[in-house]
Amino acid sequence: MAPDKLSEFGLIERFFAPIAGPAGLGLKDDAALLQVPTGHDLVTTVDAIVAGVHFLPDDPPATIGWKALGVNVSDLAAKGATPLGFLLTLGLPPDTEEGWLADFAGGLGCAAALWQCPLVGGDTVTMPGPLTLSVTAFGVVPSGAMVRRSGARPGDIIAVTGTIGDAALGLPLLTGARTALAATDRAYLIDRYRRPRPRIGLASLLRDHSSAAMDVSDGLLGDATKLLAASNVGGVIEAAAVPLSEAARHVLEADPLSLERVLTGGDDYEILCTIPAEKWEPFAAGAAALEIAVAAIGRVTGEGALQVLGPHGPLSFARLSYTHFSQDRP
Amino acid sequence: MAPDKLSEFGLIERFFAPIAGPAGLGLKDDAALLQVPTGHDLVTTVDAIVAGVHFLPDDPPATIGWKALGVNVSDLAAKGATPLGFLLTLGLPPDTEEGWLADFAGGLGCAAALWQCPLVGGDTVTMPGPLTLSVTAFGVVPSGAMVRRSGARPGDIIAVTGTIGDAALGLPLLTGARTALAATDRAYLIDRYRRPRPRIGLASLLRDHSSAAMDVSDGLLGDATKLLAASNVGGVIEAAAVPLSEAARHVLEADPLSLERVLTGGDDYEILCTIPAEKWEPFAAGAAALEIAVAAIGRVTGEGALQVLGPHGPLSFARLSYTHFSQDRP
Repeated sequence: MAPDKLSEFGLIERFFAPIAGPAGLGLKDDAALLQVPTGHDLVTTVDAIVAGVHFLPDDPPATIGWKALGVNVSDLAAKGATPLGFLLTLGLPPDTEEGWLADFAGGLGCAAALWQCPLVGGDTVTMPGPLTLSVTAFGVVPSGAMVRRSGARPGDIIAVTGTIGDAALGLPLLTGARTALAATDRAYLIDRYRRPRPRIGLASLLRDHSSAAMDVSDGLLGDATKLLAASNVGGVIEAAAVPLSEAARHVLEADPLSLERVLTGGDDYEILCTIPAEKWEPFAAGAAALEIAVAAIGRVTGEGALQVLGPHGPLSFARLSYTHFSQDRP
Repeated sequence: MAPDKLSEFGLIERFFAPIAGPAGLGLKDDAALLQVPTGHDLVTTVDAIVAGVHFLPDDPPATIGWKALGVNVSDLAAKGATPLGFLLTLGLPPDTEEGWLADFAGGLGCAAALWQCPLVGGDTVTMPGPLTLSVTAFGVVPSGAMVRRSGARPGDIIAVTGTIGDAALGLPLLTGARTALAATDRAYLIDRYRRPRPRIGLASLLRDHSSAAMDVSDGLLGDATKLLAASNVGGVIEAAAVPLSEAARHVLEADPLSLERVLTGGDDYEILCTIPAEKWEPFAAGAAALEIAVAAIGRVTGEGALQVLGPHGPLSFARLSYTHFSQDRP
């Protein structure tokens, strides 16, 4: 953006003050001021997304804003936290256009309103490189009730929310993969890639019933491996039990090898959790009452690596998840 | 960094876990968990720095880590807050070397220990562009005691800590400006640019005595203008009262026109505050006891713009501070 068009101050005033919450002090001070209710802890997380690495430079700007917040609110939800607000760091290439910013702030504001997680502050800098966003999200949990990665115990049920693999199947549709998919399936999978729906509704059920939880961002199998390792346990996941959308089923029918992408591709922003067996019924009933799909996909075992079972025995994959230090995506 | 050399996990384990505090949960969970003491508010701020914009790509990596944290802790200090911890977002170009990371983490860890502000979490991403850092810092203040920009009242004394302009005079020494300065002066000014010293010791005095405060990051005159505007007041600053280091005096003796750079260049990370006249004596005495220099540089007036007085009357400058949307620095 040319300096004579819009100053940093003008940009904040015009696009971001309208989506700010009271803790942001009108975005006119040096810091945000958050009240954590007595008897609660603050949970905080940060995730950065970079054009060409975490989203496509020509993704609709409204979905970029949505996703930047969504991936962080998803972490809060997985920890059993209720969103309180977020800080935004925006690294803008000099040629960023006002129309882009207006759409970006629109999508961000919509997501913030939906998840009751208002903007409370941030920083805007010139970026002589790709558009870069970093969101720090804040949430609260009753003291001591944050759900960790490290609480899984042998015998616990391994569960996930929603469906897995949609976003990972949506991405190649945007980068030119040829497909005979129906238009509705295409649109569904692409939207799942661009607009994660953090499972904030599940936070209180997770606090009450889960022994460990995290969100699925880097790939189901890799994330499950991390959770089990943090808990010093092993586990078994049945591939056939992993919940799939209708669109994902259609992809798999045409190309069964896509199963690896489904299980390891990531960007799901669903919740992976472990539930002690005796708590499974009340957990599942509570989720059903909230109209959030949960599926049991495996069991926690004693020590050892994660095993993935297919119809004819253990499956193995070249890799378990996306890592930011491999260079093949997107 | 080549993916086979060091994974994201290995990088965190090796360089960042050693500088993490307990709230970071070993950097092995999805979020950090902070306890805000009863009767306190959480103050939080984020600032990003980009290679080639906010620091020089060949600055020593230890000073880059130091500065990334320092600019944020400086905001906390100016708000009267005590540091609690920070989150780090690290956007690393693929060719970042391990030696660079070790030095960077060393400088960051040293600053974190000095200011008792431990790492509590973060995110590391591949950056197909310049090295980019974003730090979110957390602090606490007694409930309701955060010092805002907006409390200055006519008659208050305008004061700053330390000396002004050193960093702004240090930067051109790094970008090839010819100078006859003594080596000790050069080294002093460059260090002031690279390693800000946030005035955390002043936090409690500011809470007790100041009506408004902020840190000087974008330039004294521009920042004073912002503080006065947030308070709906005007003000007068006497240029001759602005405290200068010996090194800065030497620069000004050789080049009196450098005064503009001193007053508007920024990167000072000193505290600008307004003190009601009747509180000046206890404030100054308290600062002296802490061995923090404070200087009265002007007065808050009724409405109107900031006036800067020189020996022969009002001074005017082409600009009052650095803005990230101008392209001339560094």
